[in-house]
Amino acid sequence: MFRKLLTIEEAKQVLEQSFSPKPVGVEHVQLSEALDRVLAEDVVAAMDVPPFNRAAVDGYAVRAADTFGADEDSPVILKLCGHVSVGESPSVVVEKGTAAEIATGAPLPQGADAVIMMEYSIQREGDLFIYSPVSRGENVMKAGSDIRKGETVLKRGQTLSSREVGMLAALGLTKVGVYKRPKVAIVSTGAEIVEPGKPLPPGKIYDINAYSLSAAVRECGGEPILLGTVPDEADQLKAALNKALSLADVIVTSGGVSVGPTDVIPRVLNALGQPGVIVYGIASKPGKPTTIAIVEGKPVFSLPGHPASSLLMFYLFARPVVYSMTGRREESPLMLRAVAASKMFSARGRRTFVTVNLTRDKSGRLIASPVPLGLSGAITTLARADGFIEIPESQQFINAGDEVVVRLFQPTSYVALLTE
Amino acid sequence: MFRKLLTIEEAKQVLEQSFSPKPVGVEHVQLSEALDRVLAEDVVAAMDVPPFNRAAVDGYAVRAADTFGADEDSPVILKLCGHVSVGESPSVVVEKGTAAEIATGAPLPQGADAVIMMEYSIQREGDLFIYSPVSRGENVMKAGSDIRKGETVLKRGQTLSSREVGMLAALGLTKVGVYKRPKVAIVSTGAEIVEPGKPLPPGKIYDINAYSLSAAVRECGGEPILLGTVPDEADQLKAALNKALSLADVIVTSGGVSVGPTDVIPRVLNALGQPGVIVYGIASKPGKPTTIAIVEGKPVFSLPGHPASSLLMFYLFARPVVYSMTGRREESPLMLRAVAASKMFSARGRRTFVTVNLTRDKSGRLIASPVPLGLSGAITTLARADGFIEIPESQQFINAGDEVVVRLFQPTSYVALLTE
Repeated sequence: MFRKLLTIEEAKQVLEQSFSPKPVGVEHVQLSEALDRVLAEDVVAAMDVPPFNRAAVDGYAVRAADTFGADEDSPVILKLCGHVSVGESPSVVVEKGTAAEIATGAPLPQGADAVIMMEYSIQREGDLFIYSPVSRGENVMKAGSDIRKGETVLKRGQTLSSREVGMLAALGLTKVGVYKRPKVAIVSTGAEIVEPGKPLPPGKIYDINAYSLSAAVRECGGEPILLGTVPDEADQLKAALNKALSLADVIVTSGGVSVGPTDVIPRVLNALGQPGVIVYGIASKPGKPTTIAIVEGKPVFSLPGHPASSLLMFYLFARPVVYSMTGRREESPLMLRAVAASKMFSARGRRTFVTVNLTRDKSGRLIASPVPLGLSGAITTLARADGFIEIPESQQFINAGDEVVVRLFQPTSYVALLTE
Repeated sequence: MFRKLLTIEEAKQVLEQSFSPKPVGVEHVQLSEALDRVLAEDVVAAMDVPPFNRAAVDGYAVRAADTFGADEDSPVILKLCGHVSVGESPSVVVEKGTAAEIATGAPLPQGADAVIMMEYSIQREGDLFIYSPVSRGENVMKAGSDIRKGETVLKRGQTLSSREVGMLAALGLTKVGVYKRPKVAIVSTGAEIVEPGKPLPPGKIYDINAYSLSAAVRECGGEPILLGTVPDEADQLKAALNKALSLADVIVTSGGVSVGPTDVIPRVLNALGQPGVIVYGIASKPGKPTTIAIVEGKPVFSLPGHPASSLLMFYLFARPVVYSMTGRREESPLMLRAVAASKMFSARGRRTFVTVNLTRDKSGRLIASPVPLGLSGAITTLARADGFIEIPESQQFINAGDEVVVRLFQPTSYVALLTE
């Protein structure tokens, strides 16, 4: 077991070399449940949409050639031969010299190749007076003009919005193959941790991480499995991790890591299988004790116990993995430029993350004000922060007024900041 | 029933005067289901977090005054009086001249007011040699330093992200009061409409709108209720609308409106109750037949049958209403500046919406290329579009190269375009 703290980039590289995130399988869901899911297959149209030539306006189905030369002074006169309603299969045939009344959306009857708008014609005693010619195909929605049979209309990897769901419905589909959501088991460790809702004995605190992390798992498209709290004790931890490995595709633990000889988690992880621990401590602040292992081909992220540190490390390491396992292309981090509101110091030799709150000054510039994590890695702090700034290992501080790049926690705050 | 087509702004104004969107009620959900919900109540902390003074480091709990004057040459020597583990209620009391070993996160024992880091002390035969002084409160996470009892930690109207969920867990809460999702009934009308999954007889087409609109309802935080398809016939339509009014807070119909004397929907809506139809046709393209009514105090949006038109009109009129009914502040439209790729014409005297696809040119400029809706108001078209441009009534066209403002359909495409 190596003890050298890796840099953030080294740790990411080791993780990438040891684990390639891939979707974990395919399931078929109802169209009404397909929103925001990721297509696991190309969708090829098995039919034309619309399936037949349709009238695009209310009017008369005609043979375009019959109308040539019609004008306001010398109308063409056609015999009315019938009527086509929406939704019916027309029995009437439009022979040369005839026209059939037709409603918007109704199928063009046999023989007809255009529709004259109601406005350009007059009906009188079974005759139709046409005052303007139409060309072939005019006012006709051609079969297959929206979707052509055999066309690939949606591609594997696309996320389904309301618009793509509409396309699937147009093809008459009721189910669609999407990638399964990766399952992420969440284990909280520590003798002091009590589940919310239970009485709180002296010396104990409520479990924050299980809930904040499982919400963070959902936010990136995973399905959290809450496995409760286990003490920092090898046998119980081993049992909990074995259960997690049997139920989930990714495991996240929090607490019980501190990069020291008494650490139980790395020992248990190494005992569970090869390669075991691949990252044992990171040269970052916060997040130093972060430990990453691969066991049974599954990534295990052992995050610090402090709520803000564990959530921050989740964003940096676990979120990109879970996100990719949903079948989507890699996520672009949400970055905004801002101006530092005050001087911010780094921890010597460690990548330092400063959580910041963003506001606009009078001139509209975005101002990043540090929200210190404090001793407790306070969850309230994090809830007040919009994102974080990185200070490189080589840099001692950021000065007030310096331009900084802020990485945002969520698209919603990103959008809110840009549109406000 | 008035026939004058309203402008988009007039229609919005009439709607605002007739209906004030408000949350429809409160429900209490489990913390694990609270993500993305909107708080219906201020959350006031019923306890301190942490609930007691905690050691922030591994070390020794001391009385700070005992350590004053300690330095590397003349250490202070204290008697070890015990040990405090994480999660226990300490029985030891730190009297003057004594120190207790303590683990990170363990409760500070009575008498102690600071923690000496392990690194600055040496333990030898029951004595502790201290080489550096600490001040009161040093390395101590004070009770209430994260959240103070009585503090309002979250405000009504806040949307809960992973960070806010963590705060609720910190307080030991298992349930939280959130606004109910507004229920939106969706009715498709038209004799030609068949539900996906069923066989498609000649002359019929599959129902697109029920699925694209219900996904659009979910996208803005509502809960869709699919009520199926009804023919354009007064009695059946009336029955369907009555059912919709009994089940939902908002009603959306599609198809069966064309602003003409044969229109069934406006007549049925007016017969159902006062004020009935408030907007009967809009001077826009597409979307002209859009009809809005208020019946039993609930808004009814009767949208065109063409899939793209109905989705566009949903975005413009229904989405802001449903969004506000979720309890969130009004949504800021997502706007981006781009350059028109080609000339785009407007429909004379009507607000024209041109759906566009956004790409970047070599110099990084955003280029808006029109995706024409075509005769069919094609759903495929809409799926290819990122957003839309408005051309005012007074303007005949937009020239290629003109700067345009594109309103985007979704935050995700907004983020993707800005981060790519």
